[in-house]
This record gives sequence, C-alpha cells and structure tokens, in this order.
Amino acid sequence: MEQDGIGELEGMRSSIDNMDAALIHLLAERFKITQRVGVLKAEKGLPAADPVRERHQIERLRSLAVESHLDPEFAEKLLNFIVSEVVRHHEAIRQAEY
Amino acid sequence: MEQDGIGELEGMRSSIDNMDAALIHLLAERFKITQRVGVLKAEKGLPAADPVRERHQIERLRSLAVESHLDPEFAEKLLNFIVSEVVRHHEAIRQAEY
Repeated sequence: MEQDGIGELEGMRSSIDNMDAALIHLLAERFKITQRVGVLKAEKGLPAADPVRERHQIERLRSLAVESHLDPEFAEKLLNFIVSEVVRHHEAIRQAEY
Repeated sequence: MEQDGIGELEGMRSSIDNMDAALIHLLAERFKITQRVGVLKAEKGLPAADPVRERHQIERLRSLAVESHLDPEFAEKLLNFIVSEVVRHHEAIRQAEY
C-alpha cells in the first residue's frame, strides 16, 4: 500500500479536504460581511468599488503571501477573483434598490 | 462619524482583513501539501491531474457551500482556479525532473 504512495496520497488528500472545508466556511463568512458592506454602501450612496482600498489590500496580501511562502502573484490573482465577485454582488444590491 | 456609515464600514473592513490573512495562511499550507502531492505523483509516475478526484471535490465543496450559504457556482469556480494553479505547479515539478 505505502510502496506505491497511494496511502500517503490519501492522507494528504484528507488534509486538503479539511482545508477546503475551512476555506469555504471562511469565504461564506467573508461574503456575509461584504454583503453588509454592499447594503451600507448602497444606503449611503458610496461607490461599489474602491480602488484605493483594493490597492492597499493587494499590497498587504502580497506581503503576507511572501511571509508564508505563497506565490504573491497567485495571492493577488485570488484577491482580484474574490473582489470581482463582491463587486458583482454590490452592483446587484444597488440595482435591486431601484 | 457613525452617521455616514464610515465607522461601521471601517469595522467591517477590519474583519475582512483578518479573514483575508487567515485565507492566505490557509492557502499557503494547502500549497505546501499539494507540492508534496506533486513530488509524490512525479516520483510514482502518476498523472498530474486526476479528473475523478476533482469531480468529487467539486461536488463536496458545492454541497458545503450550499450549507454555509455561499454561492455553489462561486465555490466551484474558486476550486477550479486553485486546482489550475496546483496543476501548473505539478507540471513544473515534473519538468524539473527531466
């Protein structure tokens, strides 16, 4: 079993599955907060996107990525991916109000 | 300060920043494991991608997303985004061995 690496592979996959569950729950909580941010922005007439805030977030996450040996390019692409989903939600909230 | 929602917005942004730091550290750990998976697969001559495993992961994460009120489409797109990065790493490991 161990000789062909299948047992070791199964163990690592089980850890990946645990991390992915944590990832989903963390993102679910993050979207709950950004939904509230979206409602607040719509109520106060603030713009959905905030380029200055996003630039600071990218710089901070790139720096955290370097510290934790994650590719900073990947961290930036991931944040852009999440933020574009958030902006899509915010625009939907705004449109639902008109 | 509270009247224009800026104080409330700052509080929510601070929570988002905490979650993003957790996200980066979780993904850094996930990539450490998938790097080990990549080395093992290259050593044992196993293919870099595993469509059956990926289909199971997608179904499981979509189901976890529904339970935690996250859009399952987003969860699937996110996993595809992460997995495509992992496969890119695995192919690099494989090529580095030849």
